[in-house]
Amino acid sequence: MRTCDAQRLQAMGVRVLEAAGVPSEDANLVMAELIEASLMGLDSHGLVRLAQYIGQIRTGSIRPGHSPRIVKEHATTLIVDGGMNFGMVTARYMTDQVARKAADHALAAAASRHTHHVGRLGSYVQRLAEAELIGLAFANASRQGHYVTPFGGTRGRLGTNPLAYACPTGAEPIVLDISTSMIAEGGVRVAGQRGQALPPDCILDPEGQPTTNPDDFYRDQWGAILPFGGRQGYKGFGLALLVELLGATLAGAPLPAEDEPAPYVNGFFILAIDPDAFCGRATFRHLADELADYIRSSPPMSDSDQILMPGEREWQVRRHRLEHGVPIPDRTWQQLVEAAATVDCDISALV
Amino acid sequence: MRTCDAQRLQAMGVRVLEAAGVPSEDANLVMAELIEASLMGLDSHGLVRLAQYIGQIRTGSIRPGHSPRIVKEHATTLIVDGGMNFGMVTARYMTDQVARKAADHALAAAASRHTHHVGRLGSYVQRLAEAELIGLAFANASRQGHYVTPFGGTRGRLGTNPLAYACPTGAEPIVLDISTSMIAEGGVRVAGQRGQALPPDCILDPEGQPTTNPDDFYRDQWGAILPFGGRQGYKGFGLALLVELLGATLAGAPLPAEDEPAPYVNGFFILAIDPDAFCGRATFRHLADELADYIRSSPPMSDSDQILMPGEREWQVRRHRLEHGVPIPDRTWQQLVEAAATVDCDISALV
Repeated sequence: MRTCDAQRLQAMGVRVLEAAGVPSEDANLVMAELIEASLMGLDSHGLVRLAQYIGQIRTGSIRPGHSPRIVKEHATTLIVDGGMNFGMVTARYMTDQVARKAADHALAAAASRHTHHVGRLGSYVQRLAEAELIGLAFANASRQGHYVTPFGGTRGRLGTNPLAYACPTGAEPIVLDISTSMIAEGGVRVAGQRGQALPPDCILDPEGQPTTNPDDFYRDQWGAILPFGGRQGYKGFGLALLVELLGATLAGAPLPAEDEPAPYVNGFFILAIDPDAFCGRATFRHLADELADYIRSSPPMSDSDQILMPGEREWQVRRHRLEHGVPIPDRTWQQLVEAAATVDCDISALV
Repeated sequence: MRTCDAQRLQAMGVRVLEAAGVPSEDANLVMAELIEASLMGLDSHGLVRLAQYIGQIRTGSIRPGHSPRIVKEHATTLIVDGGMNFGMVTARYMTDQVARKAADHALAAAASRHTHHVGRLGSYVQRLAEAELIGLAFANASRQGHYVTPFGGTRGRLGTNPLAYACPTGAEPIVLDISTSMIAEGGVRVAGQRGQALPPDCILDPEGQPTTNPDDFYRDQWGAILPFGGRQGYKGFGLALLVELLGATLAGAPLPAEDEPAPYVNGFFILAIDPDAFCGRATFRHLADELADYIRSSPPMSDSDQILMPGEREWQVRRHRLEHGVPIPDRTWQQLVEAAATVDCDISALV
């Protein structure tokens, strides 16, 4: 394990991406998103993704340099085609378009097509909150990521389908960014590698039987993940379906056939609400702060606990890592050095 | 237990409400909402509420006859003051305004002030879906309904804060209508009356200790209800907070002080999205049907199970009750006869 200053990591990553053929502006944007996720402690969406992205450029899954293209536009809405460039480039473009439209028309929303992995969903709604707007975002996953069952079902029909929202306050925005499933496939994999059991009610084996053994998930045919909520899993399923309807259906994305080698996409939908059209921006910030104080006034479960607003833990980790550096596991670093070498970039001495 | 034809119940309820001073149009609207909830099997939001509403008219909590008033309006948004008339009158008015605006501007939203109990939240988004729009709705509860803890907390700071969405399909709309808590206070009360234990992880006693005994909830100081999600209760809490931020904060509603005798209100927020601005209405319906077929193709947990889309169970119950009548428990009927008598209306021979 090493730790490294965020600015140095940013410069290193930009160099690698540029060597892989990514235009400088996009390379800076992608690395800023990855480093920000790492700073916030959301490591699964942070620096660890860089090696994967380099591989996906080489296989043609990500197509650097494509500019997002508006396919359909109204005063308050747009559909954007990402041309399979980095999903972050498309999602950031959509976010900024929606912020501009919402400032003019109180509400605005955008849906995506041909958009690669958008990374940390909370990033885009946080950006809206920093522009004094309320943001809601939804991201589905294409068929190869359909591990999650409908409620009462045994086979995957949906992705882990995250949803996120953020709103401005007097200080850092409130940011919620959650999956609508009990666990991510990556979480099952990590538990398996560590030889750990999963909590109950998270996964089914390929025969549809409940299990806590991660190895039961990975047989010839894979198992399935349950929607969030346990015995109230109809709630998680209903929310996952909302993500699918807004993230993919609304953009006009048909379900690819099972045997069709469809490219990986995130169906991304983002909506902005300007509080100015309602109680006013200053009043909203003030009332949100009062609400947070009231909520924090609940006695905690135990003396060591703290009532945290959504996103608060991440802001705490961010402050710590800005000061002390971003920890990088040896395996992540080694994968990154190897990926960089495939584009003739030697970073082994850089961090 | 008796059962009664929905049309006769509607006529009976309108007569009672008119006797209580409710204008005919509003009386018909309120009864249509209650009967529709009863038809769908959502009895806690159905006919059982009529006796309660009659009492609330007598105490001045509901003020019949007030027309909803637009406080602030933009092309895509409005704030509506309900003047403490029936919440259903205000919510229906907001829904129709939002439908009209969304048809013109692709997106529209409305927030409420001084709005009494809106009843079944799913009703309003279902109405949008029947107008070929996607609807999302959120309803908070005022401070006397704050039984639900923040995640990690032991005292109530939020209501059971339901959220709902609906979207058009080729047949009946998909309608999800869920609370963001583990159980409603009414559910704790009913279990207590029946002497039944609650499932684990639903409630805390007044000392903040987990319990499954409903009697532990009702001491001198009441206990608290946990947010939806169990060990992932931060998800339910985050969603409950979204409901509060959109349902109340955005409308500019301050938190009433603890000792202030604030009137009961539902902070109601509704948002409409016109698929025409995205993939088109016909394409959306078609793709939503394909998605539903794909989801239903998951093998069920057991042979007796069926994969149900959100709202499907309610459509099934509605068909059955339209044919066979709405069941009315003796206690509900007796309360209703007594409430009707307080407004000099004898309904004892009517059903």
